[in-house]
Amino acid sequence: MEYSTKIDVDDNIVEISELLKGWVSGEELARKLNVSRTAVWKKIKRLRNMGYVIEGAKGKGYRIVSEPKFSPISVVRSVRGSLIKTVYYYDVLDSTNNKARELPENSLVIAEEQIMGKGRLGRKWFSKKGGLYFSIALKPEMNLEDIPKLTLTSGVAVARALEEYQARLKWPNDVLINGKKVCGILSEIVGEIENFKVIVGIGINVENAVPDYATNLKNLNSEVNRAEILKDVIEQFTKYYKMLLSREWNKIRFEWLELSDTIGKFVEVKAGNRTYRGKAIDMDYDGGLIVETEEGTEKVFSGDCFYI
Amino acid sequence: MEYSTKIDVDDNIVEISELLKGWVSGEELARKLNVSRTAVWKKIKRLRNMGYVIEGAKGKGYRIVSEPKFSPISVVRSVRGSLIKTVYYYDVLDSTNNKARELPENSLVIAEEQIMGKGRLGRKWFSKKGGLYFSIALKPEMNLEDIPKLTLTSGVAVARALEEYQARLKWPNDVLINGKKVCGILSEIVGEIENFKVIVGIGINVENAVPDYATNLKNLNSEVNRAEILKDVIEQFTKYYKMLLSREWNKIRFEWLELSDTIGKFVEVKAGNRTYRGKAIDMDYDGGLIVETEEGTEKVFSGDCFYI
Repeated sequence: MEYSTKIDVDDNIVEISELLKGWVSGEELARKLNVSRTAVWKKIKRLRNMGYVIEGAKGKGYRIVSEPKFSPISVVRSVRGSLIKTVYYYDVLDSTNNKARELPENSLVIAEEQIMGKGRLGRKWFSKKGGLYFSIALKPEMNLEDIPKLTLTSGVAVARALEEYQARLKWPNDVLINGKKVCGILSEIVGEIENFKVIVGIGINVENAVPDYATNLKNLNSEVNRAEILKDVIEQFTKYYKMLLSREWNKIRFEWLELSDTIGKFVEVKAGNRTYRGKAIDMDYDGGLIVETEEGTEKVFSGDCFYI
Repeated sequence: MEYSTKIDVDDNIVEISELLKGWVSGEELARKLNVSRTAVWKKIKRLRNMGYVIEGAKGKGYRIVSEPKFSPISVVRSVRGSLIKTVYYYDVLDSTNNKARELPENSLVIAEEQIMGKGRLGRKWFSKKGGLYFSIALKPEMNLEDIPKLTLTSGVAVARALEEYQARLKWPNDVLINGKKVCGILSEIVGEIENFKVIVGIGINVENAVPDYATNLKNLNSEVNRAEILKDVIEQFTKYYKMLLSREWNKIRFEWLELSDTIGKFVEVKAGNRTYRGKAIDMDYDGGLIVETEEGTEKVFSGDCFYI
């Protein structure tokens, strides 16, 4: 079954799913949520569409018999209290980034599976069921030149959320665990030069099948729960995004350096037509990687980075 | 009749329209263009769809009896030898910028009329029939922070193309004639932070009806020809775009200053929550407007500029 829905985070569909954990009458639900009986009925129908099995019995009312492991409700629960205002949930989507482009700021788009998941530089990103694939639409009050810092900041947020797994950052935007890729971040920009939206796309390998060079969280913790991981990531993202807007970039930069897997390593960075080989010694104030090459110290703003 | 077509600039449909200015047989056309008779027939049908009236007579062949004032053919003729590779022509479009987003680099999208023509900061841009409304999709090898220079550079190109009308530049991106707006430029960006496309949208009032604060070229020259104006603009655009990519921004900047209507004037610039009032004294190396206010010298990167 393919399923998609949009939920504002203050929609009381989350509360009704809590109330339905035990038997409760339609009347009581209507009273507790302060909505009409018709509204209650619609919400129950909506929950059933989401995969909730709800029993109804005369004199007793309704109750949830079983609920899906991960659902639009889990997502809304995960993002409450964060910067996210609206959740767009899809079973299947071409790419969450493409969808987020069309949506207002502070929207979160999540898909169980992406058919055309996007990696950096036009590459494909594997997005089999079981991962966490989502994009956040933002409208930051920043200059264009500061946008690359937002990608680096997002990396710090994810690494902090995955701290129990000893997550590390590979410049410019991979998150590694035990040297293997567990998360990729793809930032895109869309709109007028003076009035643009930024889409931050995050893909985390949780219990999905992954290629050899990658890993997933289930390998390290059999008890993974996607709703909890999402909650931690969005919480950290909200914190670091606010720091960035409050001009605390340098603090974020120090955390990035602390979490960095790249600094101190010998790297080859392919940036456009140029290739830089040498020791990565710093990420500077602009977000550029400082590489000590044989020809001298070079600053690289973007590109593909390989360890050598 | 609504009509749209895509033509690669090296399509020989332009040549066939030349050949058909006098009687010419299908056979001769096929030979001269080195295509099949079927291909010739398809091209004649295509020309008729574009509004060309083509007569056919036994023993004589075909000839054009009348041609539209402005057509996809005029556009292709206008852009040959420029950076444009493909022309997308529409009778009616919501917005040429929106369409250009989806298209490969070096495409030109032109519409006789825009229903949702876009001005800066989400405003509407009047786009009645008779104007020149087009967008160019580019993939410049530049850093994000240099993109605002592309808008300023586009302004210089348009002002140079309209030099006989004494066109002047109002910061950040209007072209004025006799103090009235004749052209607006709207740049948009789309794509990955390290791999993006820029859409430059240009709207020129030619023989379209305009509001009071604006003017059109026909007011100043009753002999206006949209194909010629487009040719001049694309030629200048190609020249200045190449200069910008060749790191000759400072030369372009001096030309901008020379063509500027804003420098030396007292202005009020609204940028986000701040308003700057004072004398505009320079556009600096970053493309920012330098305003001498009572509180000191301020640099403004974007915003609405009013003369006071």
